[in-house]
Amino acid sequence: MASNDDIATVYVCITCRRADDPDVEPRPGALLADATVRAAHGSGVAVRRVRCLANCTRGPSAAVRANGSWSYIFGGLDLAAASALIDGAKLLAGAADGIMPWRGRPEPLKRSLIARVPPLGFADHPGQDSLDPEAKELE
Amino acid sequence: MASNDDIATVYVCITCRRADDPDVEPRPGALLADATVRAAHGSGVAVRRVRCLANCTRGPSAAVRANGSWSYIFGGLDLAAASALIDGAKLLAGAADGIMPWRGRPEPLKRSLIARVPPLGFADHPGQDSLDPEAKELE
Repeated sequence: MASNDDIATVYVCITCRRADDPDVEPRPGALLADATVRAAHGSGVAVRRVRCLANCTRGPSAAVRANGSWSYIFGGLDLAAASALIDGAKLLAGAADGIMPWRGRPEPLKRSLIARVPPLGFADHPGQDSLDPEAKELE
Repeated sequence: MASNDDIATVYVCITCRRADDPDVEPRPGALLADATVRAAHGSGVAVRRVRCLANCTRGPSAAVRANGSWSYIFGGLDLAAASALIDGAKLLAGAADGIMPWRGRPEPLKRSLIARVPPLGFADHPGQDSLDPEAKELE
């Protein structure tokens, strides 16, 4: 379980494989989970293994969340994304508005966003859109 | 804001349009939000309008969450999905394991799942997979 001391949590799908990959064990998602656990060492970020984030056509997949933040789901990840997930989780943990900033966001997390979900207690269309890299379209 | 009396929350992206739609107002996502608010009347389900769930290539989009449940993100929704989102939210609110069951799930929510995120406090790969319609692959 995540402890209250964790600054953020990364959920890695261990059932994920790329659509064109053969179905062999260990799955790419499980290998990504192992690499992410190693990358998290000493970071304060918890890593949880999950079975299926339902992003099966665009895996390997992981989700990142901090207390009170939006949740971000990324797809098409490779092993090099492990450290990016931890760096992104730390970035999100330090964001007062709960939004992962574009500046400083690891490159693998700029091109692999699948979707995001607002935090509990989210109010309708907040005013901080100018600082929200994923909500620029209506600016 | 959602109140503590709400049994579940549906987040509807008001910036969403289909990739091949012209950029006209009101956007399909905003119309879906309006329809979902109407469908929610008297249901106990809160509806929140959000700007961008970052599922832009597969909109219109909405997310569904209940207390302690997984969060589900759906895409490619049309106006007929409004009542399905409310029915799905009620189904999720009644699921003791926090997982939206397949049986009884509205048809529009069976074919439009984009991804899902576990609840806070989620432990590694839980044992309830046999009841988890999105985690069947390893059975």
